[in-house]
Amino acid sequence: MINKTEILDAYKYRHACKLFDTNKKVSDSDMNFILETGILSPSSFGFEPWHFVVVQNPELRSKLKDSAWGATAKLDTASHFVLGLTMREPLMKYDSQYIEDFMRDIQELPENVIEQKGSMYETFQKSDFDLSDDRKLFDWASKQCYIPLANMMTSAAMIGIDSCPIEGFNQSKSEKILKDDLGIDTNLYGLSYMVAFGYRVNEPRPKTRRTLEKVVTFK
Amino acid sequence: MINKTEILDAYKYRHACKLFDTNKKVSDSDMNFILETGILSPSSFGFEPWHFVVVQNPELRSKLKDSAWGATAKLDTASHFVLGLTMREPLMKYDSQYIEDFMRDIQELPENVIEQKGSMYETFQKSDFDLSDDRKLFDWASKQCYIPLANMMTSAAMIGIDSCPIEGFNQSKSEKILKDDLGIDTNLYGLSYMVAFGYRVNEPRPKTRRTLEKVVTFK
Repeated sequence: MINKTEILDAYKYRHACKLFDTNKKVSDSDMNFILETGILSPSSFGFEPWHFVVVQNPELRSKLKDSAWGATAKLDTASHFVLGLTMREPLMKYDSQYIEDFMRDIQELPENVIEQKGSMYETFQKSDFDLSDDRKLFDWASKQCYIPLANMMTSAAMIGIDSCPIEGFNQSKSEKILKDDLGIDTNLYGLSYMVAFGYRVNEPRPKTRRTLEKVVTFK
Repeated sequence: MINKTEILDAYKYRHACKLFDTNKKVSDSDMNFILETGILSPSSFGFEPWHFVVVQNPELRSKLKDSAWGATAKLDTASHFVLGLTMREPLMKYDSQYIEDFMRDIQELPENVIEQKGSMYETFQKSDFDLSDDRKLFDWASKQCYIPLANMMTSAAMIGIDSCPIEGFNQSKSEKILKDDLGIDTNLYGLSYMVAFGYRVNEPRPKTRRTLEKVVTFK
């Protein structure tokens, strides 16, 4: 049990940090802790449709700038820079080998449950949410990947580390760089977001939010 | 600064709770705390494309069961049951009144920044991510709503409260119930997820996850 005030303080401490202190590095153990909280995230059917690439090589960071207008200052100054990748159709479709292997080898489900769950997953994709093309399936899998994104930023803030989530990039141009320069199979993975970690230089402007009364309805 | 072991313990404590103890209620102050951590979440451009409906009325809960195969036991037993709504095109499109009002009244941006940011948002929708139809725009806005989902489940776990995220529902059938019985304008809001809160009855099976080595690549 953690104190509520301390938790709220961390959520308030978190902001989209525009510029990081280049003299301060996140330690390996803190970065592994942050990634670990990402990995412990839930996802639909528990299929973990994510992969994280931590880009530390300055040349690769520089290349990413070409297609990421929202990331330039963070690529230059962040201690750690993470690409949030999401699995595409060949991995996420209900009849993929990945899904079957995952249920058997990672989730350690018995054969009859694998069959049952596989069939529910097929129905889910075909009817409940209409995930009938690559884009729709990618967007759905991408939603799952925003859960570890949130958790990594939250856990970072809780140990005094700043972060910045980034969608300011051209998806297809960035994915070309991922393919050509980072060796990522972009048939299997798409780029959902980038997220930078480090320590702030400047204090943020005060947080603005709609109030609880405006955002929540009780029925 | 919160202790890393305590934080990790909370992430490990969280699981998709299937059945809640009907004798134990989450207090109003704890529920407000959980919702508050959701509201403090970041979102693309900071536009907070979410609304939360807390459904406590037993008749309304019962109606929701008709279209939500994954929610039945949680609708019956959860202390608090939340619908995660996402803003649709009339609110989220770059030229909407909501966006302009939001930048002025909530974000309190000066007029020249409103113009600049509005124009960046238009470019973002038109080219960077191709958010050119209602479905694509909804899925993008929905991704943002998974950030407060994650944060609410995390903050709940940190104070010993269990949760269950739910996508096991038929979206269009559920939205019809939202419209007919809960008075929600489904032209403006779509249903992204449900999430239940309460206290566990049973201990979960051990958590399974791919390892850090499998999920993270350093470059």
